[in-house]
Amino acid sequence: MILNWLDLYIWCFDLCLVIAMPVLEIKVDMPKDSNVIIGTSHFIKTVEDLYEAMVNSVPNIKFGIGFCESSGPCLVRREGNDPELIEAAAKNAYNIGAGHMFLVFIRNAYPINVLHAIKRVPEVCTIYCATANPVKVIVYEDEDGNRALLGVIDGFRSKGIEEEEHVKERKEFLRKIGYKLAP
Amino acid sequence: MILNWLDLYIWCFDLCLVIAMPVLEIKVDMPKDSNVIIGTSHFIKTVEDLYEAMVNSVPNIKFGIGFCESSGPCLVRREGNDPELIEAAAKNAYNIGAGHMFLVFIRNAYPINVLHAIKRVPEVCTIYCATANPVKVIVYEDEDGNRALLGVIDGFRSKGIEEEEHVKERKEFLRKIGYKLAP
Amino acid sequence: MILNWLDLYIWCFDLCLVIAMPVLEIKVDMPKDSNVIIGTSHFIKTVEDLYEAMVNSVPNIKFGIGFCESSGPCLVRREGNDPELIEAAAKNAYNIGAGHMFLVFIRNAYPINVLHAIKRVPEVCTIYCATANPVKVIVYEDEDGNRALLGVIDGFRSKGIEEEEHVKERKEFLRKIGYKLAP
Amino acid sequence: MILNWLDLYIWCFDLCLVIAMPVLEIKVDMPKDSNVIIGTSHFIKTVEDLYEAMVNSVPNIKFGIGFCESSGPCLVRREGNDPELIEAAAKNAYNIGAGHMFLVFIRNAYPINVLHAIKRVPEVCTIYCATANPVKVIVYEDEDGNRALLGVIDGFRSKGIEEEEHVKERKEFLRKIGYKLAP
Amino acid sequence: MILNWLDLYIWCFDLCLVIAMPVLEIKVDMPKDSNVIIGTSHFIKTVEDLYEAMVNSVPNIKFGIGFCESSGPCLVRREGNDPELIEAAAKNAYNIGAGHMFLVFIRNAYPINVLHAIKRVPEVCTIYCATANPVKVIVYEDEDGNRALLGVIDGFRSKGIEEEEHVKERKEFLRKIGYKLAP
Amino acid sequence: MILNWLDLYIWCFDLCLVIAMPVLEIKVDMPKDSNVIIGTSHFIKTVEDLYEAMVNSVPNIKFGIGFCESSGPCLVRREGNDPELIEAAAKNAYNIGAGHMFLVFIRNAYPINVLHAIKRVPEVCTIYCATANPVKVIVYEDEDGNRALLGVIDGFRSKGIEEEEHVKERKEFLRKIGYKLAP
Repeated sequence: MILNWLDLYIWCFDLCLVIAMPVLEIKVDMPKDSNVIIGTSHFIKTVEDLYEAMVNSVPNIKFGIGFCESSGPCLVRREGNDPELIEAAAKNAYNIGAGHMFLVFIRNAYPINVLHAIKRVPEVCTIYCATANPVKVIVYEDEDGNRALLGVIDGFRSKGIEEEEHVKERKEFLRKIGYKLAP
Repeated sequence: MILNWLDLYIWCFDLCLVIAMPVLEIKVDMPKDSNVIIGTSHFIKTVEDLYEAMVNSVPNIKFGIGFCESSGPCLVRREGNDPELIEAAAKNAYNIGAGHMFLVFIRNAYPINVLHAIKRVPEVCTIYCATANPVKVIVYEDEDGNRALLGVIDGFRSKGIEEEEHVKERKEFLRKIGYKLAP
Repeated sequence: MILNWLDLYIWCFDLCLVIAMPVLEIKVDMPKDSNVIIGTSHFIKTVEDLYEAMVNSVPNIKFGIGFCESSGPCLVRREGNDPELIEAAAKNAYNIGAGHMFLVFIRNAYPINVLHAIKRVPEVCTIYCATANPVKVIVYEDEDGNRALLGVIDGFRSKGIEEEEHVKERKEFLRKIGYKLAP
Repeated sequence: MILNWLDLYIWCFDLCLVIAMPVLEIKVDMPKDSNVIIGTSHFIKTVEDLYEAMVNSVPNIKFGIGFCESSGPCLVRREGNDPELIEAAAKNAYNIGAGHMFLVFIRNAYPINVLHAIKRVPEVCTIYCATANPVKVIVYEDEDGNRALLGVIDGFRSKGIEEEEHVKERKEFLRKIGYKLAP
Repeated sequence: MILNWLDLYIWCFDLCLVIAMPVLEIKVDMPKDSNVIIGTSHFIKTVEDLYEAMVNSVPNIKFGIGFCESSGPCLVRREGNDPELIEAAAKNAYNIGAGHMFLVFIRNAYPINVLHAIKRVPEVCTIYCATANPVKVIVYEDEDGNRALLGVIDGFRSKGIEEEEHVKERKEFLRKIGYKLAP
Repeated sequence: MILNWLDLYIWCFDLCLVIAMPVLEIKVDMPKDSNVIIGTSHFIKTVEDLYEAMVNSVPNIKFGIGFCESSGPCLVRREGNDPELIEAAAKNAYNIGAGHMFLVFIRNAYPINVLHAIKRVPEVCTIYCATANPVKVIVYEDEDGNRALLGVIDGFRSKGIEEEEHVKERKEFLRKIGYKLAP
């Protein structure tokens, strides 16, 4: 008999590791009262170009950027105009670690104020999320430890479909805060 | 002996669930003769801004939008100008349930007519697919049931590489339907 | 007793296949000295529109495009102005095989030179990566063999966070190669 | 005495011509029920790229394009999918005759449906007007007869400033025709 | 003798009027500490879409919009979130009066913060200026009093070409205020 | 009698000056084998942002930029990577002298390669021309000498409308040089 119970146990446990490991949930540790934007880009210049996109967008914006360089020294490159947000962005980017990913924390502004400026940055490929919700980044890790950003859990799962009364409330809310005009 | 066969069976079955569950295939139930566009955005205003982007694009377009609000009441927000497509979009968005995802069903128009109008919506992050093919959305679900949109199976897997004759047919087809000009 | 060791072995192996199979790593076989851009689009016209976007961008660019048609004959459509890069793009696109995915290999130019021209192509949904790094594409495969592009491992995992000296080097490098101006 | 009345008359008349000639009003002869878009571009490929931008935008659009080539044979280049509109666009473009100007007549669609597709055309510099109003193009002509497009009289001069009642009517109108949503 | 001195005088004066009248300078009366953006658009919805573009851009922006409707009642349409700026924008737009022109006064933000949001508005054709300088708008007026916007005098004429010392000061200034990064 | 012939002569000459002066033709002195792009922008940062837009666009591009600062010292700001083109751009911008105008001379690339990168620059308002033709800039000058850019004579006036044979030649030419694909 080739296997005993212990072997089987270990073998199944290994199987579990092998299968379960590639896809990881990485929680983003959001600084208080901040929004986060996560995307992918290419080339180290991204970090300066994102910096400029942010300062061009909102006069008093505070932000920090982390960008995962994915060749050579493979350092998380960081910029911004707020030390706390820069440090937080660098740490979170490092935790995610997927090549060419970037992450921006914002205060004194909303994603809607900066999203299209970020998209216009010449190196930016795409944006995965822009949110103040709790965020988990889903990454795939190969056997060398290199990672792909697969997607983002942005807040909470849908709990229902809005009824007429919710439609009404939604529209009134957007008009009350001045984002849309009422007749 | 700690395990008997039944225990092992159950244990392996659990293992299977634990590992297999996080990644789900969710089939989009396409209304007849419609196209679908799936993307991510942020903020509840998306649903009105998408509505406007659609009506701005094609004079007689019919469409329905569903958007997964991902904080507060977490309702699927819905808009459009065609009751059937609105209901279908809301239900499919609810089935997917990933935070800040949106889904648009279109009739009387093609994705190419509206795609860039949607991209210009200030809240939109990215577009995952735009298609009349059968679509399955791949989502990741964490242990709290919250979901990330990972990707989309858009139609069928490649069956081969085109030869010269197919290139010729392709070009002739695009010129025949008037999308490209022939010399 | 229903199972013997061999049955269990086979059963666990099947389990392994069932669970492990849906998510695949597909290595992109990069032609020497090339960059790759990977994205998704819709409609067969993509391949001609991408061709034009490329020739519009850089006078002496060399490139090959492969695009996974995902309905009808489901062929990889191919264009470009360099036979080696066209063949490589078609083969790699075929290996990935996810519906409506496209892949472009570039020489004599960098992704930054063409990325926004590609984004302006009317059919393009999004860009997954733009890089000269080794690339693995992560795809999900359903039981019919149809595939979703989930993400891309673009180069190597982050090894640390840059210190002041690295910031200095980075900025000097970008100014030395003329991408940014020094005071 | 150097001048007699006749000489003075002629001299003043010449003066009038010299001064008055450089700036010309050229009335656009609008086909019935059409809209016009006028802009500037560069390079002869414009005319094919505009054609594609139009057919990409609205499924049943009818249009004609005229583009003033400004070197070599200096012909008005023309494309479209409606013979009447093509001829009208070519004739009006010829009447204006300013180098690198283009003019598009549209039916079955509105400028709002195509304006951003036109702006994305790689050769397009800017748009001067998009309107169903009567249009006069103001051009400057140098002594060799070459012309600059200076501006466009698009409809009628403002007659007043809207009061609260007009604001109300305006908002209600936009909501009634479905361009904006009412709460 | 056909003319006497008085006739000639009147005739020359008429000539002067005829020739001189079509091109007018209209001074923009800038509210204190504001910037102005002037452009052209089409369709009455512009005024609501510009409103939304502005509120999307900067959290605490204050602004007023005037838009010259150019058919039907030909009223200056007005929106904004600051009564003084709305009134100023409407009055200045009325003074200019060229069909489909719009004018936006901004406080608490700079043109760079909003310019691309305005360009993305579906009706906008082009932008003529964005500035805090004194501005004169040059318009052409036809014999019916209808007007074309020809151009804008934006501040003062160039007084020289910068020398190395000015280049140095310019770069240092942009880096000091944080718009560009220093090595 | 109030006037004698000499007075009338002088008076008419003055009239001529008064009327004729405001609109000037300024010939752009194009460096050999270059293209020019002329537009308007705002803010002194334009000159660095245009520099970056150019170097991002084509690997071996050579260019010079001149930008008419229109407040404070009102200097022509200049950048680029080719001394001859920088000097030419600065001189031509100075000759034109209209506030917030910019002018770029390009070699080793075509306007189509850089036009949209320039449009994405956050300060840029619009583009007036992009051409290798002889160019005259039409400016309006007020009594203080400040100037508005009104338009551009870009090459030569239209000499006719293309016939079928010219359409055929045009399409064949674009396909021969590889800008469009033939079936």
